[in-house]
Amino acid sequence: MKNFPERLLSGYRDFMDGRYAAEHERYSELAEAGQKPEILVIACCDSRAAPETIFNCGPGELFVVRNVANLVPPYEPDGTYHATSAALEFAVQALRVKHILVMGHGRCGGISAALDPAEKPLSPGDFIGQWMSMLAPLTEQVSSSRVLTRAERQTALERISIRNSIANLMTFPCVNILAGKGKLSLHGAWFDISTGELWVMDAESGDFSRPGR
Amino acid sequence: MKNFPERLLSGYRDFMDGRYAAEHERYSELAEAGQKPEILVIACCDSRAAPETIFNCGPGELFVVRNVANLVPPYEPDGTYHATSAALEFAVQALRVKHILVMGHGRCGGISAALDPAEKPLSPGDFIGQWMSMLAPLTEQVSSSRVLTRAERQTALERISIRNSIANLMTFPCVNILAGKGKLSLHGAWFDISTGELWVMDAESGDFSRPGR
Amino acid sequence: MKNFPERLLSGYRDFMDGRYAAEHERYSELAEAGQKPEILVIACCDSRAAPETIFNCGPGELFVVRNVANLVPPYEPDGTYHATSAALEFAVQALRVKHILVMGHGRCGGISAALDPAEKPLSPGDFIGQWMSMLAPLTEQVSSSRVLTRAERQTALERISIRNSIANLMTFPCVNILAGKGKLSLHGAWFDISTGELWVMDAESGDFSRPGR
Amino acid sequence: MKNFPERLLSGYRDFMDGRYAAEHERYSELAEAGQKPEILVIACCDSRAAPETIFNCGPGELFVVRNVANLVPPYEPDGTYHATSAALEFAVQALRVKHILVMGHGRCGGISAALDPAEKPLSPGDFIGQWMSMLAPLTEQVSSSRVLTRAERQTALERISIRNSIANLMTFPCVNILAGKGKLSLHGAWFDISTGELWVMDAESGDFSRPGR
Repeated sequence: MKNFPERLLSGYRDFMDGRYAAEHERYSELAEAGQKPEILVIACCDSRAAPETIFNCGPGELFVVRNVANLVPPYEPDGTYHATSAALEFAVQALRVKHILVMGHGRCGGISAALDPAEKPLSPGDFIGQWMSMLAPLTEQVSSSRVLTRAERQTALERISIRNSIANLMTFPCVNILAGKGKLSLHGAWFDISTGELWVMDAESGDFSRPGR
Repeated sequence: MKNFPERLLSGYRDFMDGRYAAEHERYSELAEAGQKPEILVIACCDSRAAPETIFNCGPGELFVVRNVANLVPPYEPDGTYHATSAALEFAVQALRVKHILVMGHGRCGGISAALDPAEKPLSPGDFIGQWMSMLAPLTEQVSSSRVLTRAERQTALERISIRNSIANLMTFPCVNILAGKGKLSLHGAWFDISTGELWVMDAESGDFSRPGR
Repeated sequence: MKNFPERLLSGYRDFMDGRYAAEHERYSELAEAGQKPEILVIACCDSRAAPETIFNCGPGELFVVRNVANLVPPYEPDGTYHATSAALEFAVQALRVKHILVMGHGRCGGISAALDPAEKPLSPGDFIGQWMSMLAPLTEQVSSSRVLTRAERQTALERISIRNSIANLMTFPCVNILAGKGKLSLHGAWFDISTGELWVMDAESGDFSRPGR
Repeated sequence: MKNFPERLLSGYRDFMDGRYAAEHERYSELAEAGQKPEILVIACCDSRAAPETIFNCGPGELFVVRNVANLVPPYEPDGTYHATSAALEFAVQALRVKHILVMGHGRCGGISAALDPAEKPLSPGDFIGQWMSMLAPLTEQVSSSRVLTRAERQTALERISIRNSIANLMTFPCVNILAGKGKLSLHGAWFDISTGELWVMDAESGDFSRPGR
């Protein structure tokens, strides 16, 4: 472990002396009894938007999927690898979470790449281009707008994408059925990195607004 | 936002009054300048093993992918969606991270599912079964052991899987080239939920041991 | 006694001036009354893993068998010499110990020899090869693993061997009967020379873990 | 590990807080570099005669075989299990020890059993009887003596047995050759539990006497 990042080792020591020392019983209980989180969060990989940090959550509280731009693909039982669908299935069917939150954020690099596709892809595989193409029809409508500023187009697509992911969630039979029975609720939220503001989506209208204190 | 989880709202208020209040300048800087994380962490969705918590990291430090059992599939430029490969490409090619950490943990539900496949899949799509089938050849060797206990098989596969993910990382041309030039280093680590122990992988031998203080 | 090792003579003088001077009454009592140890330890000959040292035990506390790799052969009343079986019989039947501990350790040379048999045996008699062949079927399963590192195979076989020795202990009628009546308990432990960690075996699962303080 | 002897756990904690804390560097060196003991001690299982205690030796100093009555059987390359011969081979051929000490002691239960064979053996296998039968011809001569007291017969056989074990050591080709070249020396010693006296055997005469200070 010669060049293991010292930042991680020192951070881990702080964790052990601090949080773990204070919560070690909770950790051993969670190890024995297994995790029983009530909330699945689908968030972005962005280093500035960790759900546990923004929601100040401790061990055992949030089951978290993180991919570029917090996207949920539609239900495709095609026998290939599906990282997000597998995590969704595990959270809903095995852990029986009660809530699913799709959490987006401002200045998302993935959304930005969707709005301004690079002339030359980052790799021959163009994994980012392929991944963000999931939003293609929506992206076109936003990109073609001549009345929204660049920043407005970015924020717009970030929020449209959240609504789109929630719609895709409903294409999964297990989500659809449990949501229909009121045993599972779907939520959307958007975090503004620069101001720290959390905007929560209204389930009916799809609008985003800030919760009062 | 009627039934938006109160736990998340109260946690968010604690974040705003605490960490954000203390770090708001850092957040606005990160918003203006953009993120420049040096470390990509590929971790599990498990609610007990959040990288930011275990490494006590703040905003901007870790670019984090989280999928079931922290798996990295091999390089497959086949024009379909690849959540993990897209995040990897973005972190390495766009953000130019210097380190990639594959972080596993004890009592992993995905690894457990790989060792003891459910008689009936959780869904017709069997997304978990498909996803964990990435480890099939390795799993067989471990499952067939009549001399290891169930817990020993679990820990063995958790660590074997980390080595396998690191091997798969090297199948990505961008990773292979940069690692070859010494501009990118790959690491493995395993977190023991019950004891809080962090076991770090030795790059040469692949063995896991605990770093000294 | 010209070339009697000076190290032993000086060590003996230290013993007489120190421990013996402090415990001479205990020694004379033990001489008069005879020994009544409650614990039989089956340990390895390794110079780094003396039970009296690791358990900080004094005179009269531990009846200790030490052979290469702390092995217990199965019950074989065939009228030949059986060093370990004779010691076991004496401890259980004559001294009526209440506990038997099979104590293994890391980096065991005997286990290493079992995993990598020498091309040419150390002697025509190949006593080490013969002795370690007691583990042959278990060794094959571990050696054949292509997914465990060399160090992982070593630790695995060290622990598997402890479970095997405990199983062999139960083939001795006297052990089996007394254990069945709850008058004798069998234990396993593994000592990590490099870290000083003691790992204790769980009687039910056979798993090894570190006792809390 | 419910009923793991508390005595061992508390003793281990004392070891960790005391000796290990003081010698942890030595332990990690011994783990890395491997053991290189210069002395093989063949001692009795007796709880009152631990070589590390009597010679006040630390980790890495003594490679120790312990069987009932510290016997060495003659060289018998017959393809069966030989605990003592295997340890001897490992110490001499693999570790290349420079000294072998056969260490007996007073009030030895094994010797006592040899002098007064139980009317009914401890077990159908009579492992003790078989094991001590190694001394049969010598035992007869001592038992038949009508001029020695019981205690004198006991001490006599304890010392005769040490000389016999040393003679048996010389039947092992590797011992014979190395001893002939002066690269290996054989020693005998006898420990008096009640007085703490160490009696050392003279290599030429075979007599036992106490070393001066």
